[in-house]
Amino acid sequence: MATTLVILGATGDLTRRLLLPALYRLYTLDLLEPLEIVGYAMEDWSREQFIAHIKEGIPGLESHHDLKTWNEFSSHLEYRSGDLSPEKLKELGPLVPDNGIFYLALPPQLFGQAAEALGKAGLNDIQRGWRRLVIEKPFGWDLASAQVLREQIHREWDEEQVYRIDHFLGKETTQNLMVFRFANRFLEPIWNSAHIAQVQITYAETLGLEGRWRYYDAAGALRDMLQNHLMQLFTLTALEPLSVWSAEVLREHKVEVLRSVRPIPEGAVDRFAVRGQYTAGLIGGRAVPGYLQEPGIPPHSRTDTFAALKFYVDNWRWQGVPFYLRSGKRMAASYAEIAVQFRPVPGLPLGQRETPCNWLVFQIKPSEQMDLIVNAKRPGLGFEDRQVTLTTPYLQEGETEFSAYEQLLMDILEGDHAQFLRFDEVEWSWRILEPVLAAWKTGHPEPYEANSEGPAAQARLMEPGQSWRPLSGPK
Amino acid sequence: MATTLVILGATGDLTRRLLLPALYRLYTLDLLEPLEIVGYAMEDWSREQFIAHIKEGIPGLESHHDLKTWNEFSSHLEYRSGDLSPEKLKELGPLVPDNGIFYLALPPQLFGQAAEALGKAGLNDIQRGWRRLVIEKPFGWDLASAQVLREQIHREWDEEQVYRIDHFLGKETTQNLMVFRFANRFLEPIWNSAHIAQVQITYAETLGLEGRWRYYDAAGALRDMLQNHLMQLFTLTALEPLSVWSAEVLREHKVEVLRSVRPIPEGAVDRFAVRGQYTAGLIGGRAVPGYLQEPGIPPHSRTDTFAALKFYVDNWRWQGVPFYLRSGKRMAASYAEIAVQFRPVPGLPLGQRETPCNWLVFQIKPSEQMDLIVNAKRPGLGFEDRQVTLTTPYLQEGETEFSAYEQLLMDILEGDHAQFLRFDEVEWSWRILEPVLAAWKTGHPEPYEANSEGPAAQARLMEPGQSWRPLSGPK
Repeated sequence: MATTLVILGATGDLTRRLLLPALYRLYTLDLLEPLEIVGYAMEDWSREQFIAHIKEGIPGLESHHDLKTWNEFSSHLEYRSGDLSPEKLKELGPLVPDNGIFYLALPPQLFGQAAEALGKAGLNDIQRGWRRLVIEKPFGWDLASAQVLREQIHREWDEEQVYRIDHFLGKETTQNLMVFRFANRFLEPIWNSAHIAQVQITYAETLGLEGRWRYYDAAGALRDMLQNHLMQLFTLTALEPLSVWSAEVLREHKVEVLRSVRPIPEGAVDRFAVRGQYTAGLIGGRAVPGYLQEPGIPPHSRTDTFAALKFYVDNWRWQGVPFYLRSGKRMAASYAEIAVQFRPVPGLPLGQRETPCNWLVFQIKPSEQMDLIVNAKRPGLGFEDRQVTLTTPYLQEGETEFSAYEQLLMDILEGDHAQFLRFDEVEWSWRILEPVLAAWKTGHPEPYEANSEGPAAQARLMEPGQSWRPLSGPK
Repeated sequence: MATTLVILGATGDLTRRLLLPALYRLYTLDLLEPLEIVGYAMEDWSREQFIAHIKEGIPGLESHHDLKTWNEFSSHLEYRSGDLSPEKLKELGPLVPDNGIFYLALPPQLFGQAAEALGKAGLNDIQRGWRRLVIEKPFGWDLASAQVLREQIHREWDEEQVYRIDHFLGKETTQNLMVFRFANRFLEPIWNSAHIAQVQITYAETLGLEGRWRYYDAAGALRDMLQNHLMQLFTLTALEPLSVWSAEVLREHKVEVLRSVRPIPEGAVDRFAVRGQYTAGLIGGRAVPGYLQEPGIPPHSRTDTFAALKFYVDNWRWQGVPFYLRSGKRMAASYAEIAVQFRPVPGLPLGQRETPCNWLVFQIKPSEQMDLIVNAKRPGLGFEDRQVTLTTPYLQEGETEFSAYEQLLMDILEGDHAQFLRFDEVEWSWRILEPVLAAWKTGHPEPYEANSEGPAAQARLMEPGQSWRPLSGPK
């Protein structure tokens, strides 16, 4: 049976920068089953134009051997121009004789319309092979729009045909979270509120808008990072162990975590959420403008370029343990981690002074590594302790990674849903944030200087005795 | 009040090679309170001869500044010659006006006699200051001789005056065991039979007899290493947490561990103990003789140059967990560790194959480090795991250690008993080994080639599914 991948919106950035390079690498590694790829977009391009356009995005095509491989690969590329009308889309039918994947590399406001039109054009017809629909976040703008999108999609597609991408789920370090948690005996007995004091999930960028001002000013940090990517890291950290390794069990457990999150009270959003907006500052010695001075941004924009949340998970495992999530632009470091702090040891075990707490840290940026911060004897006379870090890089010598898109495209081809969002996962994460979105429709974010740790107000989320970890990471 | 340290047997190797270099280093670091040091031995030496003898053992006395410091230090050195008769020892009285430490750097068969004679000479008289007696293993040769020695000592000395040295207790990595166990919250919940499958304590040497044949052929590995040093590592690993940090509580808990060791049945010693004796082999490309061909060794000696034991600790924490201890000479590596294996994770968490077990390893030789062997995702497509090691050296950048004798001498001067053995600890460790000592009076050790992992027969101690870790350490 032939398999065809149709990319709608194939002339855009995503296709050239991420999708085709991922497919090409999988091809060079001989990991792809035979696959025909059809680009589809409004542009009235020829097949040759499309191939030339894609080729520019493939790095390092220089040697004779590389070019030969590229030529073989590109012989499987097609291009068709057209709009999103069912009539026009019907013309794709003959190009998808058996199995088909329809990847919506389109602006999100077109997802619903495109999904419906594909169905009306009969391209969802599973009589001739399996048919899969791929979309990538954002899945709606709030709970209501996410529900509308779900209904639009489900008019023509079954849930099991839909692959919702959050590319963080394709990242090696995200996937390692799950492996690490359930493949290590030492962890499960201490992975609960009896032994864990708090969890901090931070994703900080030094970057600013990078030209994406139109999207970003409408979205903000909460929608751009927290509702999706950080929520994924959160659910994978809080997840109950899987009885069996299955996509449905995994997704069911993630939804259970979201359903256990204590609702944020409408009248007390400030105790659970902090928003910030960067002002001018120096990054790497270079002056950068404040958010409101960025080209294109309205001078009174209240968009959050920093967002921090506190969750409590009201279940047996996590009762009383705060989960802190935050992300921001123009911060002091490009740094990301999931940091789990254990409770203090009882008493004064060495008879002298308080012993600092253990931390288990999954560092994502700047380097992928795992750190266990422990107390060991301070060498020398007497019995004092000091903290040292047991560490290992995620990538060991001689190992290489696959990119998120390589991972996820392979999963779609193989029909593995584990690393894709189910409709209810999307909706529950919006539902949790509804009170915050409502509150943030008025008022203004806290200013924070570019190249800082974020707004000072983020400290108000912390429980007594807790504080945000510095962006420099473990010392 | 003046403090005087009297070393009996001061012309021997221990004094010049270990005790005085330790005292001198403490002096140069300004850690010593004023201390007068008196050497005492049979040799009819002058004070100058003694000082010159000691000076040869101090490394790196070259610069003008070093020599000046040495001269200041050596102005506190005295020497007296004499035997162990109370009459002769009485002459030391005027040299010990207030506090006094009597360090028996003597052959062990003289410990009892010397302790009694010191008492009869009135040197134990606490009317003029504290008086302390220091002895170093072996403390007896078996249970009966250990009890005789205890009685001899206690005729003239109170238990609280006695400091029994096992120099392993002065080692940084041994002391770190205690700090690590009780200063880390993540450890206590999993430090029990519910989560730990086995503990292996290995101390392997590539060295042979190094001229100590007379002592060694009478002792063997069981008496030389297992009964004392490895037993200490064992009790510190198995210890219950201390309610308060106190020498008496610590020693009480160590004795409790020993009292909980399941007695080795007289008729089934082979199930709990294995002995070996090395044969000729190549070490570092150099041919070395077998034990029976070593100079001085009787051709039919049954001395064990390798000993391995299995203990069960019948208490709530350790029910059913085997503790394996072994030590040997002429083995394939100079390697020592305490390795704790956790039980397997239930089921097949990744749906594929069995996941290997976690290990926590305190490596002592060749490098002092802590390793936690975990399972993480294998980078690449799919969800497989592989083992990686979170590690840290014990000594962090810029830190320096103190030697065992530096640590222990400071403790004796400060009157801290924590790192010294109580009489009952010694006796319980002999009591545990009585059936083995009895069984090994007949028969012969298993031969093992020099530069090997020890006798193949050691495998018979292992429970199903367990095996000795290779001497190469964690991969």
